[in-house]
Formats: sequence, C-alpha cells, structure tokens
Amino acid sequence: MASLRSALLPFARVSLRTRHAQLPSLPPSLGLMRGYKSRGPARDPMTGEMIALPDIDPSLLKLEPTSSPKIRPPSSTLIFGRTFTDHMLTIRWSSNSGWQAPVIGPYRPLELDPSSTVLHYAFTAFEGMKAYRNEDGTVRLFRPDMNMARLNRSAARAALPTFDPKALETLIKKLVMLDSEWIPNEPGYSLYIRPTLIGTQNALGVGPNSDALLFVICSPVGPYYASGYKPVQLLATKKYVRAWPGGTGSHKLGVNYGPGIVPQSEAAKEGYSQNLWLFGEDDALTEVGTMNLFVAFKKPDGGVELATPPLGDLVLPGVTRDSVLALARGHIKGEKIPGLPDNLTVTERKVVMGELEEAEKNGTLSEVFGTGTAAVISVVDRIGYNGRDITIPTGPRGLGPIAESLLSRVTDIQTGKIEHEWSIVANDVRL
Amino acid sequence: MASLRSALLPFARVSLRTRHAQLPSLPPSLGLMRGYKSRGPARDPMTGEMIALPDIDPSLLKLEPTSSPKIRPPSSTLIFGRTFTDHMLTIRWSSNSGWQAPVIGPYRPLELDPSSTVLHYAFTAFEGMKAYRNEDGTVRLFRPDMNMARLNRSAARAALPTFDPKALETLIKKLVMLDSEWIPNEPGYSLYIRPTLIGTQNALGVGPNSDALLFVICSPVGPYYASGYKPVQLLATKKYVRAWPGGTGSHKLGVNYGPGIVPQSEAAKEGYSQNLWLFGEDDALTEVGTMNLFVAFKKPDGGVELATPPLGDLVLPGVTRDSVLALARGHIKGEKIPGLPDNLTVTERKVVMGELEEAEKNGTLSEVFGTGTAAVISVVDRIGYNGRDITIPTGPRGLGPIAESLLSRVTDIQTGKIEHEWSIVANDVRL
Repeated sequence: MASLRSALLPFARVSLRTRHAQLPSLPPSLGLMRGYKSRGPARDPMTGEMIALPDIDPSLLKLEPTSSPKIRPPSSTLIFGRTFTDHMLTIRWSSNSGWQAPVIGPYRPLELDPSSTVLHYAFTAFEGMKAYRNEDGTVRLFRPDMNMARLNRSAARAALPTFDPKALETLIKKLVMLDSEWIPNEPGYSLYIRPTLIGTQNALGVGPNSDALLFVICSPVGPYYASGYKPVQLLATKKYVRAWPGGTGSHKLGVNYGPGIVPQSEAAKEGYSQNLWLFGEDDALTEVGTMNLFVAFKKPDGGVELATPPLGDLVLPGVTRDSVLALARGHIKGEKIPGLPDNLTVTERKVVMGELEEAEKNGTLSEVFGTGTAAVISVVDRIGYNGRDITIPTGPRGLGPIAESLLSRVTDIQTGKIEHEWSIVANDVRL
Repeated sequence: MASLRSALLPFARVSLRTRHAQLPSLPPSLGLMRGYKSRGPARDPMTGEMIALPDIDPSLLKLEPTSSPKIRPPSSTLIFGRTFTDHMLTIRWSSNSGWQAPVIGPYRPLELDPSSTVLHYAFTAFEGMKAYRNEDGTVRLFRPDMNMARLNRSAARAALPTFDPKALETLIKKLVMLDSEWIPNEPGYSLYIRPTLIGTQNALGVGPNSDALLFVICSPVGPYYASGYKPVQLLATKKYVRAWPGGTGSHKLGVNYGPGIVPQSEAAKEGYSQNLWLFGEDDALTEVGTMNLFVAFKKPDGGVELATPPLGDLVLPGVTRDSVLALARGHIKGEKIPGLPDNLTVTERKVVMGELEEAEKNGTLSEVFGTGTAAVISVVDRIGYNGRDITIPTGPRGLGPIAESLLSRVTDIQTGKIEHEWSIVANDVRL
C-alpha cells in the first residue's frame, strides 16, 4: 500500500486524514440532500482500504500559450480587477480521480453547467496575492505560502478539495512568469493574482462536491494611492453583522463578501466609504470593509499601543495583518523600523467602541488603519458611531507615523528593495 | 417623463425606489473596492433625472426550441437534481440597460468569464418550487407568488436586481409547459424548478453588480418517500451556527448553504442525517438541515400545541412552513383537516432544547418534523443533544398524526386533488 500511495500522491503534503475529512459517506438526508450519491475516494479492491487520490502535480502541466496575445492597455488606464492577462491556470478535481493535470492556457470563459453547485450554494474560496517587478527585473511574490495555506483551510471549511500548497505555488509562479510582461514597470504597480476554487458538481442536491475547479487569473493593477494618501471614512455598523462565533468569518470564502455590499451601499448613502464591522453588546471592533483593523492608542507613559482584534471566528487571518504584527514586534525586539515609536507595544485584543470614544476625548486616539492586499494600509480619519463622528488625526501627509512606517517597510519588502524571506523570487521556475 | 417611464417599464411593479436602493453611487472605497465604477441607472440627458430601466417583459420572449430533444430516463431511475429537461430560461440584466429579452432555449452550459462576481463573492439567490401533473392532465404550480416574492427579497439583500414577479411567473409557466412531458406521470413525482439569479459582472472589485443573469432550470424528481416514510435523525449542533441576527439567514441565498456541508458531514459521522441548528445560550431551535422545523407538544388539557420558531433573521420564511401554519390555523377556525387534533393550538414562538428534554421525560413530546419543498414534511425520530439522544415517537407508519394529515393535505392541494387558490394551473399560458 505504501508504494501505491506514494506513486499516486507524489506531492502528498495533505494528509490522508485531512482529505478524507471532506469526503464522508453521507446517508440519505433531509431536504435537498435526497438522492445525493456519496462519491468518496477510491478504495483498494482487495482490502477496501481508502486509496489516496492524485494531488496537484506541476510536472503534468499542459502549457498551451495563446496564439493571439492581447494588447496591453497603458498602466495609467488600469482599473482594479478589470483587465486580465493572456493566460490562466485551471486544474480540475473529482472525488473519483483527484486532481487532474494542470493547464495553463489562454484566458477565456469557463463553461459551467447551469446546475453547477457554485452557482447555487456558493461553494467558492479564493485568495488575493500580488506579484511585484523589482528594479533589477526579478519578479517576486509576497508570502505565497500564507495564501496557499489559507486557501486550503478555506477549502476544507467549504467542503471543497484541499491540495499540496507547494505544487500550487509552483504553478502560480509559472503562470506569473509566462505573463510577466503584464506586470507594469511603473513604481507602485503590481500584478494582482486571484486563485479561486469552486464547486462544479452538476447536481442540485446539497452535499460535498464531487467535482471542483481551481483556477488562477491575473490582473495588472495600479497603486492604491495613485494621487496621494486619502484617508477613508467608516460607518460603525450595528444593523448588519459580518461574522459570528460558529460562522465562516475567519475563512476567505465568497460567502463573506456578497452580503457586505448592501451594508456598504447604506454606509455610502450616509457619506462613509465603508463599514466598520462591530460585534456583540459592547460593540467590539472586528474588521473594516474587507480589511483587518488596527488602532494606535497613546499611553500615559508616553508609549504607543498598536492594537488589533484577535483572530478567531470574527476576523480573517490577513497576510498583511500578520506581516504588520510581525514587523512591529520585530521593531520592539530590535529590528528597528524608522518612524515607529521607540516605546511601542503590540497587542491582539478586544477593542470596543467605547474605548475609541474615550480616547478621542482624552486625545489618546492616535491612528486607525485597515490592512489588506490591495491597499496594504488604508488610513481612517472618521468613524460614524451612534449618530456622531469620531475623528482621528492623520497629519499633513494623510497618514500617521505608524501607518507610514509600516506601509513603507511592507512595500519595500514586497518590491525587493529590502531583501526579506517573505519576498519570493519567481524567476527561477521552469516554464 | 411619466409616459417615457411607462413605456420603458411595462411591468413596473418594482418601485423606482427599490431599484435605486440597489444601485447607489459608491465613492472609491477600501480594499478590493478600489476602482469600482458605479454604473447606476440611466439618467435623462436633459433633466439628469433617473430613468426607470426595462423590467422583465414576457412579450419579448425569444423561443428557441431544441432541435435535439434528450431521451427521458425512466422515472424510477431519477435522482434528485441530476436530470434536467430540454430547455432553460435565461434573462440577462445590466445596470445600464435593465432586463433584456427573455430567452427559452436548449439546456446548455453557461459561458462565464472567470472574473464573474458569482464565482468569487457568492452573488447568488435561488428558489426551489415544483410543478405537478394532475390526473386530468393539467399542470400546476404551488404558490409561485411566494417564490417570486422571496427571490426579489433575496436579490435585494445580495445587491442583485429585482424584477416584476408576475412576469417571471409567466415565463416559468411557459418553460414548464414547453417541457411538460418531462413531468412524470407516476403519483408522487413532480418537476423541480430552480430559478437562480447570479452576479455576472466581469470585475474583481467588490461592489454592486453591473451585470446579472437570471436562469431557470427544471429537473424531474421522484417522491421523497419512495419506499415508505423513513424518519430522520438530527444532531443538535452547537459548534456551527447557521444564522445570526444581522446576517442573511432569512434570505434564500447561496451563502446559507455551502457552509452547512461540513457540519452535516460531521453529523453524519456520528450517525445523524442532518443538523438541528441551535442559537443562543439557551439553545433555541431554529432550523433543521435545509428545512423549517415544527414541534408538537401534548398539553395538560389534552390538547396539542404545534410550535415553530418565529420568522426573523434566524429562520427562512419557507413556503411549506407558511402553508402548514395556514392549514393548521384554518383547521382551528373550522376548515377541518382529517386527522388533526380537535384541540389544536398553533404557535410561532421560541422553542429551546430544555423544553424538548422535559417533554420527552413527561411523555408530552408528540411529534417533530421539518418542512420544505423537496420532502414537504420530513419526520424526525431522534435528536442527539449533549451526548444523549432525545427520542420522538413516530408510530407504526413512521409519522405521527399531525405530520401525516398535513402532508396529505398539502400534497392533495399541490396535485389538484383538492382545489385550492394555492394551486395555480399553468396550462393557460401561451407559448
């Protein structure tokens, strides 16, 4: 068995146990479950023992370059997520056959049966990551291992198949290098990469997916702050709740995004850019729009506390969030970052709206900002709450010293200006 | 203006205000919102006033019958939601042009750009309804107005376009009549109808959809209880929470379904068919799997209380739930249903697990069942809770007197055996 397993599972970093956890044999069940046929993994015909299915295998890649490359638009005309490169990566999966040979081919429409489960039951997990072109011409990804790990966690929560993270990272490098001319040369520009995993079973029964499709598309994007830093305004929202204990808020699933648009539109009508998502009777801060949240408080001893809500069911484990925390903690330990206060403390703790009101009154509310892949850091200067606005100083440049220092350090690492283990060179991949 | 509006909006039952509420002009915003271009409704070039966009118009229907009808499988081989009829209805919408001409054409794959918003942010709302063939050959829909109204509510919550409910109902009748030979003749069989509304904007910015697609597919299905009534077993779930105040649990959105599969699989591993969804510290019952929930308690005065959790953010307003409530209340008012207790009370109220435990002990736990379109009524005989099982009597026929009476009455109305205003004949529609 061992040799058969290893033959079938050359990149098997996902344990059999994990894989099996997503493919239980379900008995006939209520409602739409009727008639759902369990399609568990293959079993050994002699022993009945479960056999591991093939994982993603980059050596099987079918490279089908486009015969009609698109004309690349001028960088200055780019709108986020509207322009896509020449190629896309697709990898099909089925519960009978596992992951099939990856294909990098022309960017083109997907053909989906109208009964595909993603269209009905929202079986979709995705990632957002970026590739940067360094001045020396190298192409770099930022902490792709974090995205691969998170996509696997999301997949497991959505009853979608998991995969070897290194294998997908390798294939994304190949895609990015094939389309590397699409990464704009101008400073601040990058290539936004969108890995997406969807359920493609052609059946209306609500159950684990027998079929799935992993695809990766790429979009050249401009700098978030094309014309200087512009602070945003938030409406602290009590009517709608983004996430709750026992829900899916800590996974990067489509289900966490669609329901946020109506609340966002309502905030917009009141003159705010985005929602500040609260939770619980004491109005704890959780996230802002589609970003993680940081608050800086001045402390009585002259120091500064940089606080962010703790991970758990209410908060997405953001890559930028993790990076900001690590850099700030490194600063405290001696890997100094210019501009950050000497007397800094970093906390992951519950922050409630009452604290912000109190700190505004006392003059100790120093900075508020969101973190995410698109903007890296997005500064907040006003929060609508209980009928009045809490104002946060942002200084003459539109962002406070902590936001500015961390934004600068993160982008220097992303673009390779500062060498760091987080910045992964993609050029060494073989096409 | 009035004449222009009425010319453009021949079926305008959706108010301008409702429509506008979904198409706000959003300022540039955080995170993925960057670069989102608001595509609000058209404006009058002279006055700048908003012009109503075309609603769904059945008179514009393009009928494109298939040239290669499929071979219909024997009814006995049907599995829920796996076989689809020859045709489908599709209607495209854009924020610039409104609803376009409906098309009934061959069932075939949808071509979706990989950036389509439904694949990333779960912009999908759907309905489940059925068409029945009466013994006299008429084809009947069951309360389609309820489904149309709910789909409009779901659409509004998901930032998708709303529509004239009567227009879509008419088009669904046309589709069903065109494919009416697909409704099996055998008793208990029906045609499951799945209207689905998805966001099809080709952009990764998270915002209101500039494009959407409404499609309707049909699947012949067998009786839920093909071989006698089989009670199901539930695991009362505290680890996962289906819905939350301020969430989307009361809307028929895809986002409420995908996240339920892993909890269901975990219940299956412990020998239960489905989850009983609880909420709050007192473990209030909300829903069961993808169905609404009813509990019957014997009362000290010899009467019976039929209780169901009240509507609100935690419970989907089910069509079968509403029908069961109305029939039971009608019985109390004098429209007697054979088999229902004379001394019946009907309540929409909070029911907590402690009550079920107490009632089991006292011998007053009479019946527990789920209601939904697929099974109509699905009887529960065991609920796993806090490490032990609560058992519910189901009698020799596998379902108690209330479940049996209501199931019989609802199906008699659905199939036209009992004439009722809920049963809508589809045959009068012109193709």
